[in-house]
Amino acid sequence: MGSELLLLSNSTVHGMTYLEHAMSAIQEFLGDIRKVYFAPYALADYDDYTAKAQTVFEPLGISLVGLHTQEKPQEALKEAKALFVGGGNSFRLLKSLQQLNLLEVVRQRVEAGALRYMGSSAGTNMACPTLRTTNDMPIVQPDSFASFGLIPFQINPHYIEPDPRLVYMGETRKDRLEQFLEENDVAILGMREGAWLRRSGQKLYLNGTVGARLFRRQQESVEIEAGTDLSWLLDLPARFDQK
Amino acid sequence: MGSELLLLSNSTVHGMTYLEHAMSAIQEFLGDIRKVYFAPYALADYDDYTAKAQTVFEPLGISLVGLHTQEKPQEALKEAKALFVGGGNSFRLLKSLQQLNLLEVVRQRVEAGALRYMGSSAGTNMACPTLRTTNDMPIVQPDSFASFGLIPFQINPHYIEPDPRLVYMGETRKDRLEQFLEENDVAILGMREGAWLRRSGQKLYLNGTVGARLFRRQQESVEIEAGTDLSWLLDLPARFDQK
Repeated sequence: MGSELLLLSNSTVHGMTYLEHAMSAIQEFLGDIRKVYFAPYALADYDDYTAKAQTVFEPLGISLVGLHTQEKPQEALKEAKALFVGGGNSFRLLKSLQQLNLLEVVRQRVEAGALRYMGSSAGTNMACPTLRTTNDMPIVQPDSFASFGLIPFQINPHYIEPDPRLVYMGETRKDRLEQFLEENDVAILGMREGAWLRRSGQKLYLNGTVGARLFRRQQESVEIEAGTDLSWLLDLPARFDQK
Repeated sequence: MGSELLLLSNSTVHGMTYLEHAMSAIQEFLGDIRKVYFAPYALADYDDYTAKAQTVFEPLGISLVGLHTQEKPQEALKEAKALFVGGGNSFRLLKSLQQLNLLEVVRQRVEAGALRYMGSSAGTNMACPTLRTTNDMPIVQPDSFASFGLIPFQINPHYIEPDPRLVYMGETRKDRLEQFLEENDVAILGMREGAWLRRSGQKLYLNGTVGARLFRRQQESVEIEAGTDLSWLLDLPARFDQK
């Protein structure tokens, strides 16, 4: 048994309700698991965020338990079968995960096939080796940018092409990802809103309602359609801080 | 004598050339100074970036010297009268400034009134206490988020309202700044492209072709017009990591 991951670019597709676009993928992913732990640390109000997520899971007969309600979140995760890490601010999320000492226990249990990991947006970024391709503002300072590292490449959630109507001189998303590649020799999958990745052991597929764009150092970026087998990305070397 | 600062939201306004919109402010700021040091560390190609900046300063009879061409940049700054910190990626810029040990020497000399500091975009962010309100991607990991701290509040460069035509579910700029205020009790000036701040001792003015938006914790954000005296911002307390 290997890692079982469901990594959503985002939680809410325009015109749909929270997680609605990915419900069938979530049900397939969880199978007969009836209890999921929820990491709400990316937003400020943990109770409110957990209650929102519960409205999606409870109608499926799945109990969603906020990790913040547990006296010892690390102990809870040692027994958990599934973890959902919600979106929000990646820096705030990573800082909390570090302070609570949750990175190593999750990594070990996911890699052992004992814990299923589902993320959306910032929660998907956390599955990468680092948060270096987040879109979020660095509102707090984590000890390190290293995150769960459940895949060996980076994801850019909410990936979007620049709007040609916009009169804005700041960097486009593509500019930012190219800056990342100047400093790091690591592939980045720019996942559009509505896309998700499903890893099952050494198999990895892009799925969802839209595609993604793959960026690699000194290569033209390429379009990846929904349904594509991306298992080869699991074997790519990742070299950070390689100027 | 106190600090002399010129902090541009951005270097290039739509439809104009590099720094063109701010030329008169730059000339007023530099006065009869004929040599300016340039910190090109926010972009990958230092020579290329310095050459671009030189095309603006040299026609004014001002010599622009890339700090990267100096064997000992810290020593050069001990004699410098003016420093221009260019835009690009704030994380890359701050990491370089830390590695070269330039933060303290610049802070001391600016506060003593011996060194004039001019920044654009990421260079303007560096003048704040931290880089926590940058828009940039965290492509490399600096040792700390603390930056020059030449003003006691934060700036968000390239500030922009969301485009109502855009179908994008990621956070707006306003969302991101509100997340910052959830974690930190520090004022943020969202400076639109074309705006700049001019500090002279204990006087601080917003100038430029457009205005700015001021965000404070538990207050409605307010519009600030070009020409406004913002000296009172220099006396506001800044409390980071205040949940």
